[in-house]
Amino acid sequence: MTDSTRPIIALLTDFGFSDPYVGMMKVAILEIAPDAAIIDISHDIRPQALRQGAFLLAASLPHLPERSVTVAVIDPGVGTYRRPLALRVDRRWLVGPDNGLFYRVWNSAPSDSRRAYLLDRPEYWRPVVSDTFHGRDIFAPIAAHLATGADIVQLASPALQIEPMPSTGPEQAADGSWRLTIEHIDRFGNLITNLPAADLPGPSASLTFTIAGETAAGVGSNYDSTDRLIALVGSLDYLEIAAPSGSAAEITGAVIGDFIIMST
Amino acid sequence: MTDSTRPIIALLTDFGFSDPYVGMMKVAILEIAPDAAIIDISHDIRPQALRQGAFLLAASLPHLPERSVTVAVIDPGVGTYRRPLALRVDRRWLVGPDNGLFYRVWNSAPSDSRRAYLLDRPEYWRPVVSDTFHGRDIFAPIAAHLATGADIVQLASPALQIEPMPSTGPEQAADGSWRLTIEHIDRFGNLITNLPAADLPGPSASLTFTIAGETAAGVGSNYDSTDRLIALVGSLDYLEIAAPSGSAAEITGAVIGDFIIMST
Amino acid sequence: MTDSTRPIIALLTDFGFSDPYVGMMKVAILEIAPDAAIIDISHDIRPQALRQGAFLLAASLPHLPERSVTVAVIDPGVGTYRRPLALRVDRRWLVGPDNGLFYRVWNSAPSDSRRAYLLDRPEYWRPVVSDTFHGRDIFAPIAAHLATGADIVQLASPALQIEPMPSTGPEQAADGSWRLTIEHIDRFGNLITNLPAADLPGPSASLTFTIAGETAAGVGSNYDSTDRLIALVGSLDYLEIAAPSGSAAEITGAVIGDFIIMST
Repeated sequence: MTDSTRPIIALLTDFGFSDPYVGMMKVAILEIAPDAAIIDISHDIRPQALRQGAFLLAASLPHLPERSVTVAVIDPGVGTYRRPLALRVDRRWLVGPDNGLFYRVWNSAPSDSRRAYLLDRPEYWRPVVSDTFHGRDIFAPIAAHLATGADIVQLASPALQIEPMPSTGPEQAADGSWRLTIEHIDRFGNLITNLPAADLPGPSASLTFTIAGETAAGVGSNYDSTDRLIALVGSLDYLEIAAPSGSAAEITGAVIGDFIIMST
Repeated sequence: MTDSTRPIIALLTDFGFSDPYVGMMKVAILEIAPDAAIIDISHDIRPQALRQGAFLLAASLPHLPERSVTVAVIDPGVGTYRRPLALRVDRRWLVGPDNGLFYRVWNSAPSDSRRAYLLDRPEYWRPVVSDTFHGRDIFAPIAAHLATGADIVQLASPALQIEPMPSTGPEQAADGSWRLTIEHIDRFGNLITNLPAADLPGPSASLTFTIAGETAAGVGSNYDSTDRLIALVGSLDYLEIAAPSGSAAEITGAVIGDFIIMST
Repeated sequence: MTDSTRPIIALLTDFGFSDPYVGMMKVAILEIAPDAAIIDISHDIRPQALRQGAFLLAASLPHLPERSVTVAVIDPGVGTYRRPLALRVDRRWLVGPDNGLFYRVWNSAPSDSRRAYLLDRPEYWRPVVSDTFHGRDIFAPIAAHLATGADIVQLASPALQIEPMPSTGPEQAADGSWRLTIEHIDRFGNLITNLPAADLPGPSASLTFTIAGETAAGVGSNYDSTDRLIALVGSLDYLEIAAPSGSAAEITGAVIGDFIIMST
């Protein structure tokens, strides 16, 4: 083992931390890739919330290193037939079920920087595959093999497309305003929207954001403000609404899926 | 360090994740076994819930690799005298207090595949042993020594028996039905019973499960169903009651310790 | 990599476990120090609760090994100017914002065992430093460099003092009694005070502790008692009030910041 090759495997699930499920996945990884550094992105995606998971996956991926492998499992249909996948996107690997979870990442990547593979070689899975825990029995071992440098053509066959999930970008109204959607609410009550920082229209000082009768004016650069609500680019590089001295979620009563109107 | 020898140490406690206690145990392990891969099985056992811990320990152990070391600490009596133990069960090590927590694992193992040892060599513990945190001061260092290949005869003396805890298997009623007990409820609201998959009576299609006036018919293989409640074998290889489009715990109002009647 | 040099990096934040923030910090560490063992002390400090964080940091530090590096981030003012710091205290490193969080550790260390440094060499930070996540962009990489043996004089410049935070030790009243403050309440409902075990006045058997009309007499050594409330020295070596068969927090209704009167 040399420093430069210690593989990073990241996990994103809706399994929570209270049950043994995440630990079982880690054991399945370490049996094949004992030197892997396993990173928990989140296990607190709301149970079976594919859309929240798809957003956090897309938002986290650019912050993971090249050659990393991310196992993402939010899988209401485990045990029924949905294809097990490995994806290569922008020099990173993704492994999980083909149920829409990966569409947001896939759809936003240039077509020459992405490839999909169908996991169809059970000899690289756990010897016994349960109907209820493909995260442990299929996806964890495949991730471990990829992390240790296995060739994808041994583990899988090329696939042409993946399961779509309805588009979730900002939508423009007839009056020119934009409807943003709250995709995630973090521990601090920040309302994280589906607007990537790179897509912010300028000049940002003239933007206003409205939710539940409250307004944030302009786009700040940090949480230092005397305003009740502010808009800024958060740690994941998406626009968020925050309350400098409290929780924007509490102030607005907003929940994931609610809209925020952005006026230019 | 070579890949094939990186030791796995698993932790199961009621310490939670909010306090520094789990981190302190990990430090105590890494000081002796710096290359160990430490896996959290769960730290969210209800405070001092020996029985829930004993069940999850027994259910998780077969999913851990041979030569792994599991430290299990649910210890209402810490600081009073209960023996500190190491157990060898089915080629895996277990370390923790002799207060009944290990009895379920012990009792279900063939007698020729299990051995018990009394930890009686303080020179292998932390130099100062507190009265309130044997997990850090005794069990973590012993687990680390075992993980790095120390000989048990240096760390402990053979013991003949361990502290029992009342039996917790399914019980048959006069009418032939079985009374299962809910041992754990997971994040998805699945009601995990004390019936191992291997003990399911056949034919499983004719079984019915009743709880709180609700019934599940047959034993499915996954969560895909239009039924309100279903029975299936879950990720830990025990029978569980689930709600395909919700939480069985919410639907039934069940809590850990409640009974489920299985009729053949 | 040899066993004796695997660096330990400990994390203490108010980021919680549900969001990707802790994972992002770990990635930033592993990119520089791939062999580091990363330990979570706690990420459940109440949001922006500097004082609770300062206490748990001071209480945990003596339990971390020499040469370890602790990244502590509770940072209401992230993005505004407060100095980024590295501290050397009692042969351990600390990294984080200069906003009072480190004062408790600093103030209780002999002046010849502590040194402060201003992080002023951005070439050792992440290439792009956000205004909202210095934990990932400044503190994690600096901790990783320190853990791999980088010389502090390359990363930082000496600083003479750090930001103070009001003193939080026990206070003596005119009648000779002491007013202790509850600094933390753990998962078991134990009320952990600001009185270090080393400062307990003797004889401890004659001490009484009063809170919310309830009294604990003497200082026990473990949780084995038939008393409703007891006082003892807890796992972090501070005096705590516990309920042997329940939760002292529930019995007393106490919250962090409440007082406990100690009479001699």
